[in-house]
Amino acid sequence: MKQSQLFTKTRKEAPADENSKNAELLIRAGYIYKELAGAYVFLPLGLRVLNNIADIIREEMDAIGGQEVQSTALQRKELWQKTGRWDDAVVDNWFKTKLKNGSELALAFTHEEPMTDLMKSFISSYKDLPAYPYDIRTIFRNEERAKSGILRGREFFWKALYSFSKDKEQHDEFYEKIKQAYLNIYERVGIGDKTFVTFASGGTFSKYSHEFQTICDAGEDTIFLSQEKKIAINKEVFNDEVLNDLSLNRGELSEFRAVEVGNIFSLGERFSEPLELRYMDETGTQKNVFMGSYGIGISRLLGVVVETLSDDKGIVMPEEIAPFSVHILALGNNENLFREAENLYFDLKNAGIEVLFDDRDIPPAQKLQDADLVGIPYRVVVSEKASQNGGIEITHRKTGEKEYLDPSRLVSYLMEG
Amino acid sequence: MKQSQLFTKTRKEAPADENSKNAELLIRAGYIYKELAGAYVFLPLGLRVLNNIADIIREEMDAIGGQEVQSTALQRKELWQKTGRWDDAVVDNWFKTKLKNGSELALAFTHEEPMTDLMKSFISSYKDLPAYPYDIRTIFRNEERAKSGILRGREFFWKALYSFSKDKEQHDEFYEKIKQAYLNIYERVGIGDKTFVTFASGGTFSKYSHEFQTICDAGEDTIFLSQEKKIAINKEVFNDEVLNDLSLNRGELSEFRAVEVGNIFSLGERFSEPLELRYMDETGTQKNVFMGSYGIGISRLLGVVVETLSDDKGIVMPEEIAPFSVHILALGNNENLFREAENLYFDLKNAGIEVLFDDRDIPPAQKLQDADLVGIPYRVVVSEKASQNGGIEITHRKTGEKEYLDPSRLVSYLMEG
Repeated sequence: MKQSQLFTKTRKEAPADENSKNAELLIRAGYIYKELAGAYVFLPLGLRVLNNIADIIREEMDAIGGQEVQSTALQRKELWQKTGRWDDAVVDNWFKTKLKNGSELALAFTHEEPMTDLMKSFISSYKDLPAYPYDIRTIFRNEERAKSGILRGREFFWKALYSFSKDKEQHDEFYEKIKQAYLNIYERVGIGDKTFVTFASGGTFSKYSHEFQTICDAGEDTIFLSQEKKIAINKEVFNDEVLNDLSLNRGELSEFRAVEVGNIFSLGERFSEPLELRYMDETGTQKNVFMGSYGIGISRLLGVVVETLSDDKGIVMPEEIAPFSVHILALGNNENLFREAENLYFDLKNAGIEVLFDDRDIPPAQKLQDADLVGIPYRVVVSEKASQNGGIEITHRKTGEKEYLDPSRLVSYLMEG
Repeated sequence: MKQSQLFTKTRKEAPADENSKNAELLIRAGYIYKELAGAYVFLPLGLRVLNNIADIIREEMDAIGGQEVQSTALQRKELWQKTGRWDDAVVDNWFKTKLKNGSELALAFTHEEPMTDLMKSFISSYKDLPAYPYDIRTIFRNEERAKSGILRGREFFWKALYSFSKDKEQHDEFYEKIKQAYLNIYERVGIGDKTFVTFASGGTFSKYSHEFQTICDAGEDTIFLSQEKKIAINKEVFNDEVLNDLSLNRGELSEFRAVEVGNIFSLGERFSEPLELRYMDETGTQKNVFMGSYGIGISRLLGVVVETLSDDKGIVMPEEIAPFSVHILALGNNENLFREAENLYFDLKNAGIEVLFDDRDIPPAQKLQDADLVGIPYRVVVSEKASQNGGIEITHRKTGEKEYLDPSRLVSYLMEG
C-alpha cells in the first residue's frame, strides 16, 4: 500500500488522558484510535495485525479439531439465571441492555451458558462427542476503571473455545493438546520466550487452573517463576501446598510482574448439570457432558507485544503479525530514485510480499522517524546516500542491523528471509 | 471437511416459533442456530458463507479505495446528542447500556457520528481528502418485532462505508463508483438478475437516495419496476413528480414485493457541521467535509439468497459464496467404494477445492436428502449404481443436471468449471 493513500497518520502526542504505554504508542503510530476509556477503534494498520493474530489462532485451533462459529453478543437472561451467574453480585462486570418490551438481555462477557445450551441441539449420544466449537468476536466487560489501554478493555476482541467431552479422560487428552496449541500461538506472535504456563486458582471445579503469563512491567499479576523448569505460580495461590504439589522450592523461583495472555479451565459438569446438557453413553446411560473453556485475548496480545518488544524509538513488530513485512522509504527529491523506489514497491507486491511504500512529500527525517515508530520488520531506504553505498539500504527494525544491496536482489533477499 | 466431524446436524424441523422461510431452511440445514428472536449464531456452514460474502464486499470496497477499520460497538452519548439522534423519539431502535458509574453508552446501530468524530484526527487539509474508511461488524437494532429470520435482526452483520470528500463534485464521482461496486456485489453473490437500483426517500439532505432492492416475496417493501430500464421506485416516493424526474410512465412499471439489500446516502454536511469536521481548502478557507454513507447487510444477503434461490428440496447455494464447492457422498456399504470416495476427497483437497465428504454411517436416502437441503453446488455420488453407469455421478444442485464421469477426471472437470 502507498502510505499517501493510508488515511491515518502518525501523531506526535497521544491523547492527554491515555496513560498506558501500549495505547500511547499504538495511537501515535496510527494503529488504533481511542473511542472511549476501554474501547478502541482498530485503524487499517491495527486491524491488519489483529487479523494476523486471529489467523494464527484459527490455524492452531483448527489443527486440534476446533470448528469456528460466530455466536451472538445478545444473550438470554434465563440461561444465566439457571447457572447462578446473572446477578451483578456474582459477576461484577456485566453490561446489560433491554428489549423494547422491557425484558433484560445480557451483552456477552463470555459464552459458557449460551454455548452449552446450543450444544443441546447437537449432542445426544457418545458418538457426538467430543466437539470443540470456538468463537472469535468482540466481548464486553464493564470494568470499573479502564486504564491499561488494550490490555484490559471494556470492549475487546478474543477467541474462546469450549470443549465437550464424554468424561475426564477424553477431556484431559484435549486439555494437553490445547495447552500446547496456546504455547505455539505465543511463540508465533513473538512472545514465546517471555510466556510461561502458570498455576492459578482453579475456581469451584478443579484445584488449579492453568494460565499463560507473559513477563511484563505493565501486568496486573505477580508470578513466581522457575525459568529453568518453564513453570510459574500465580501469587494468588502461592503457598507451601502448591510448592509441594509441583515439587518446587522457593529458592528456585523469582518474582515477576506479568500479564495473563490466556487461560484454560476444566469445567467438568459445572454448566452441563444446571443446563441439562446430557448424552447417552455406550451402555445406554444418561450422563452429563464434561466441559472445558479456553480463552485468549486477541487485542490484548497486540498490547502485550507492544509493551514487551518496543524500544525508545517505537513499536517493533514481530514478522508473523506485522501489518506489512517491508517498509520502503524514498528519501530526497531525486525523481529517478523515487521511480526506483516505486518500481521496487511493485516488484515486491507482485512477489506477494506485503509492503508499505512511503511515497509522501515530507522531510526524510520525518519518514525515518515514522518508520521506527510504526515498526515494520524490514526498512528499505532508497536515497542518494544508499546509492553511493552500493544500492539500497536495508535495516532490520529489531536489531538495527544494516545492509546494502543491489536493488535487483531485494525480492530474493526477502524471500529467503 | 469430513461430515462426520462437523459437529452440527441437519434437522427435520425448525423451532416452532420460527416463521420465516430463510431461518427455517438455514436452521434445518445446520447453517444457523436461533439464540433469541432476531439473533442467530452462525454455525460452521453459515459462517463460511458469511465470510465468503464479506470477502467479496472487501474486494469491491478495496477496489474503489476503501480502507477497512474495526470500529467499536460501545459509543459515546455526547456525539449523538450533538447531531440530535440520541433521543429514543428520534431513533426508535436504540439499544443502550450503562457504565458502572451510571453514565449511558450507545450500542452501535450505525457509525456516522463516531466515524465523523474520528476523522477529525486525520483530516485537516484538502490534501487529506477523499477518504473512505469502512467497517465490517455486528450491529444492534432494537426491533419491536423480529419475525423475518436473518432478513431483519436485532443483531446482525453488516458493512458500512463512510465517504469524506472536499465537495459535491468529488463526492458524486465516488457515489457513482460505489453504486457500481454494489451492483457487482449482488451479481457475485448470485442475486444480480433480481436486484435493481431503486429511488427512495432522500431524508433531510437530498431529494432521493438510492436503494438496492431484490424482488422477494418475503420483502417488506413494495417497488415499481421497469425491468427493461433496470430501474425501480420505492412505493414510499411513488408519485407523478418522481415519474417525471426519471422520465418514466406508469405503464412501463410493474409492482413487486422486494427486500432492500443495500442503501447509499449523500449526507452532505448533515454530520460534519454539528461535529465540526472541517478542512482547509486550496485557498486557505475552512470548509465542512462533504459526506456519504453506504450500508449493506451481510447476514441479510445470505437470507435473501435463501429466500429467492431455494427450491422445494432445500437451499441452492451460488458457487461464489457456497460453504463448500463440492459435496462427495459415499453411498452403500461397499468398502472399496468408500475408499474411492475418500481418495477423491483428498484429491480435491490437494487441488485446493473446498469439499465436504459425507462419510457418515447413515442410510443413502438420508445422505441424498441432506445434500439437497444443504445445497452445495456440485454433488458427487460414489455408489455401485454410479459405477455401473460409468464412474461417479455429478449433479448440479441448481439445475438438477446429471453427468457420469471417470473418477480420475473429476479434478480437471471441476477446475474447468
